[in-house]
Amino acid sequence: MQTELTILKIGGKLIEDDRVLNEVLSLFSKMAGPKILVHGGGKEAGILSEQLGIPVQMTQGRRITDADTLKVVTMVYAGLINKKLVSQLQALGAYNAIGLSGADGNSILAHKRLVKDIDYGFAGDIDAVNTGLLSKLLELGLIPVFCALTHDGKGQLLNTNADTIATELAIALVNSFSVKVFYCFDKPGVLDNPEDDKSVRSRLDRVTFEHLKSQGAIHTGMLPKLDNAFRALEDGVREVVIGGVQALAGTQMGTRIVLE
Amino acid sequence: MQTELTILKIGGKLIEDDRVLNEVLSLFSKMAGPKILVHGGGKEAGILSEQLGIPVQMTQGRRITDADTLKVVTMVYAGLINKKLVSQLQALGAYNAIGLSGADGNSILAHKRLVKDIDYGFAGDIDAVNTGLLSKLLELGLIPVFCALTHDGKGQLLNTNADTIATELAIALVNSFSVKVFYCFDKPGVLDNPEDDKSVRSRLDRVTFEHLKSQGAIHTGMLPKLDNAFRALEDGVREVVIGGVQALAGTQMGTRIVLE
Repeated sequence: MQTELTILKIGGKLIEDDRVLNEVLSLFSKMAGPKILVHGGGKEAGILSEQLGIPVQMTQGRRITDADTLKVVTMVYAGLINKKLVSQLQALGAYNAIGLSGADGNSILAHKRLVKDIDYGFAGDIDAVNTGLLSKLLELGLIPVFCALTHDGKGQLLNTNADTIATELAIALVNSFSVKVFYCFDKPGVLDNPEDDKSVRSRLDRVTFEHLKSQGAIHTGMLPKLDNAFRALEDGVREVVIGGVQALAGTQMGTRIVLE
Repeated sequence: MQTELTILKIGGKLIEDDRVLNEVLSLFSKMAGPKILVHGGGKEAGILSEQLGIPVQMTQGRRITDADTLKVVTMVYAGLINKKLVSQLQALGAYNAIGLSGADGNSILAHKRLVKDIDYGFAGDIDAVNTGLLSKLLELGLIPVFCALTHDGKGQLLNTNADTIATELAIALVNSFSVKVFYCFDKPGVLDNPEDDKSVRSRLDRVTFEHLKSQGAIHTGMLPKLDNAFRALEDGVREVVIGGVQALAGTQMGTRIVLE
């Protein structure tokens, strides 16, 4: 039987609120077995961009990463947030958290996104995960903490969506582990009514998802997360849950994503 | 016979000039055997502090690290510079560079410097190096790239001089390796006349150093570097060299520091 591996993705408001963040990290540090944390950026990158007079350009929920913005996200994601999470995990007794970008140990190789309609700038689409290295780090009892940066192997860092990083890590590791992915965010799960936190679906299968999507009943911010979730399952990930801190704590269920 | 380990410390102007930096990284990537890179900050932290309106406070060549300054150095050292160095090393074929702060893997534990005459703020004095983890990372063929940050194990990051980090890493690893430290900077070595780059001493022993120091003939910026160098030798480091890129390239000698 394969060893279970948990990949927890956290982002947005979970990172911005110190009290909530501390709860998330505390729950994460107590999880048994090998595990990986993947974090997004929160609003810090936007704040720093504004302070430095760098215009934030977004399109369809994705940041356009020009050279100045890449510097900002490198500072905020790999520096400020990653080291904050790692040092706080150490304080929680997880004396083995190790912060990584995709450049570190060549752990995530990507290429600069090709320009079709939109030039996303220094945005990376993932080509390969260094599973050999990751397996060895996990064997050493280390807890990789990934920020949302990859590299192209030619010296260029690339901004890469944290949900996608969590998904690609999970898929790459299915041959070595029985992988569970938990996309943790500031809602209790996939909601039938975005205005009502009590309308959490306990499960969502592919047919229902496609149906809801065609009706426009899925919030646009949720679409890429769910696309990632279904892709993970199709590619061999054992379990995918989308939920809030309560689901992580086990006091609520969150939404279990299933193929059928 | 112990395996040779090279620790290269780079800082200041070496990091600020892309052409020189690329040469340093190229030479470093070609060095045989296990190796560690330690980098300082360069002027980027000062520039960012200024852009953000955070006053830079220095005393006796050391930065006073208040909470805002700690955020800046965390962003610049662990984010911007560390990931730049790691991604560039990957491009040079060293597909195993891995960026670390002292918080990562609990690799360097420190305490906040006690306040005597001066309150240095969030400055860290090193207590322990996680040699077990470092040995394992080196065994995996990884090349640790350390920025000038440590942590206290209680969630607090601390700003720590990069020369001191290189020295403490070297001393901690003498039982496992035959350690050589190379402090590489923008001068060709220890100069008899600070105005004359040709006045490089080929060697400097402790008695001569103390004599020159008592005469006030050692540049103040050089004193902590030399104190670190002699301490390393006294604690079992096999070889210590202070020099420029030419010494790294082997086209000049640099200054070899010796006990007697």
